[in-house]
Amino acid sequence: MRTQVAIIGSGPSGLLLGQLLTAAGIDNVIIDRADKDYILARVRAGVLEEGTVALMDQANAGTRMHAEGLPHDGFALAFDGREHRIDLHGLTSGRRVMVYGQTELTRDLMEQREKTGGLTIYNAVNVQPRDFDGNAPSVAFEKDGVSQHLQCDFIAGCDGFHGVSRKSVPDGSIKIFEKVYPFGWLGILADVAPVSHELIYANHPRGFALCSMRSETRSRYYIQCALDEKVEDWSDDRFWDELRRRLPGHHAEALLTAASFEKSIAPLRSFVAEPMRFGRLFLVGDAAHIVPPTGAKGLNLAASDVHYLFSGLVEHYRDRSDAGIDAYSQRALSRVWKAVRFSWWMTTMMHRFPDTGDFDQKIQEAELDYLTRSQPASMALAENYIGLPY
Amino acid sequence: MRTQVAIIGSGPSGLLLGQLLTAAGIDNVIIDRADKDYILARVRAGVLEEGTVALMDQANAGTRMHAEGLPHDGFALAFDGREHRIDLHGLTSGRRVMVYGQTELTRDLMEQREKTGGLTIYNAVNVQPRDFDGNAPSVAFEKDGVSQHLQCDFIAGCDGFHGVSRKSVPDGSIKIFEKVYPFGWLGILADVAPVSHELIYANHPRGFALCSMRSETRSRYYIQCALDEKVEDWSDDRFWDELRRRLPGHHAEALLTAASFEKSIAPLRSFVAEPMRFGRLFLVGDAAHIVPPTGAKGLNLAASDVHYLFSGLVEHYRDRSDAGIDAYSQRALSRVWKAVRFSWWMTTMMHRFPDTGDFDQKIQEAELDYLTRSQPASMALAENYIGLPY
Repeated sequence: MRTQVAIIGSGPSGLLLGQLLTAAGIDNVIIDRADKDYILARVRAGVLEEGTVALMDQANAGTRMHAEGLPHDGFALAFDGREHRIDLHGLTSGRRVMVYGQTELTRDLMEQREKTGGLTIYNAVNVQPRDFDGNAPSVAFEKDGVSQHLQCDFIAGCDGFHGVSRKSVPDGSIKIFEKVYPFGWLGILADVAPVSHELIYANHPRGFALCSMRSETRSRYYIQCALDEKVEDWSDDRFWDELRRRLPGHHAEALLTAASFEKSIAPLRSFVAEPMRFGRLFLVGDAAHIVPPTGAKGLNLAASDVHYLFSGLVEHYRDRSDAGIDAYSQRALSRVWKAVRFSWWMTTMMHRFPDTGDFDQKIQEAELDYLTRSQPASMALAENYIGLPY
Repeated sequence: MRTQVAIIGSGPSGLLLGQLLTAAGIDNVIIDRADKDYILARVRAGVLEEGTVALMDQANAGTRMHAEGLPHDGFALAFDGREHRIDLHGLTSGRRVMVYGQTELTRDLMEQREKTGGLTIYNAVNVQPRDFDGNAPSVAFEKDGVSQHLQCDFIAGCDGFHGVSRKSVPDGSIKIFEKVYPFGWLGILADVAPVSHELIYANHPRGFALCSMRSETRSRYYIQCALDEKVEDWSDDRFWDELRRRLPGHHAEALLTAASFEKSIAPLRSFVAEPMRFGRLFLVGDAAHIVPPTGAKGLNLAASDVHYLFSGLVEHYRDRSDAGIDAYSQRALSRVWKAVRFSWWMTTMMHRFPDTGDFDQKIQEAELDYLTRSQPASMALAENYIGLPY
């Protein structure tokens, strides 16, 4: 079996890259160790930058997103008894974000892939990128008990933080930068109208809270929790009570509740692997970097990686130039680090850290006070939130 | 002896307050434990915000400052082999800072005080604010062996970090916030033309460096050093060599050197005491707060305290309203914390911390990269540097 671009991983970054390549006439095959239903069952992010929206359109997979997604022109910061709206639209000369669940985006890309006849090999076992330091790379895997080799020109490692792609790189050729935060997010999904039509990020003495949503009838709520908390200790009632305590009074009163159908605790981590290219293997998205969810950058960063890699591959096949491929790691990492910085900053500003002293706590309060009263500082927050230019 | 406002401390904040009061027809006496020559021999800051410049004019002490001070429209950030100019003037719709040594400013205020017949009692011993929790405060002191009491309506504690004013406040009524940085600044003064006509803040793997000046013929240079460094281990030659290593090549080559006539190591500290008012005693400037010198906020913060207190006193005497006095602590602290945050941020961004891990180092680099490429982020830096509005 042979293709031009072998893609490991059928999450949003692998699918988006695949459909962009397909739309550009570049042959590609996706290999995933999981099956389609498993991939679609994962609950993930839901705020898309305009750049990500544009890539969905470019992949011819944006129709339902535009019909059902919720354009958001702002969000709220709640702290110190105040609630302050960040007017994304006004602060960025008319840009906005789109609330649309990652699960839905993945589904749309899968449907588009089926429509275009793109090949995805699910349930592959022992997937292994091979010989990517030479000119004849391949991906080895087993399917239904049969060993196979997918010959290719390039391999895109879109298989996430725990995937095989990054782990296949020789020891010593990769440098890891990491920060683990001393708390997690306890999150729930419930089919109930969101407490506000825009997101609310709350910094409360009891800890951070986030009111988010997937649609006008499906709410996504989070509260900061200790790392040793157990999901089974959190009944729905306990969760709703704790969330109410951390919200401004009028929101706490207006909060509608329902039985949750998903509840989980996620640790928060910043992680970057450098470089993002090893010969003919390219790391994309979570395979190379993880950001804490504050600021909603994870999926969007995967999309910008896809953009840079796709551009480089198009240059290679259409223009016979490897300039874009050679620049991939540097271009992607430059934007990655800015988003890592932003996510770290917003996480630091909005959470209560167990080891924070009095001085650092006052600095946090001064930062929120300054940020919400300064036009340039608010503009800087907004330009990062809606997404820095590619 | 009786006056309306007793001012403890004849540094720039005490003198500025005194001359503003005098210009407004409010009687005041300054008491200082040091003598005039000692006060004028202290080497301190030299970058004035426009608000500070305006207060000097309001105190009728601005003539020489306007004639000899150097208006600066920008400064440079040097890092990662790059040099980037922060165009203060362009980023703030036409505002700028004034380079004029604190020593000169103090001298001008002293001369104006003599001209207006203002009383300053130097060499006072055992200065002690008294009864400021009641309606008849006073300042006790000894002068030439004679115990005296200065009766007054209000006491302004302008006597710096080590002064008696803050120490006179009852235990438990004041809260301290503090951060000590793990390095100091080794600074020299030399009569030689500055290497650049604007300030250069350099973040170098060997540590921070600052090229500043007092005039077109007097340079002020600093390098970050370990806290256990000793001045006597730093010959001029060693200092110049180390400074050159930390500057962009063309500046290192152009650097003119001369024998230093002042050389000292200062630790870096953030410190805030809350509140800033105790009955009829008001803490002003360094008596209430210290910032690291990065960003040049110390003197300017003292000036904004003076502005708030002066406004409150004028309201008291002229309008028979204590609203301004009652709001002093809250108004001053709101601006203090924003400047403390800015100084902490700029210090953190520009220095190498001995305990910084790889991740934090990359965040620092990402912050500088973002800051210097983002218009809103550059505007936010500029508005803080030229001084937030009173």
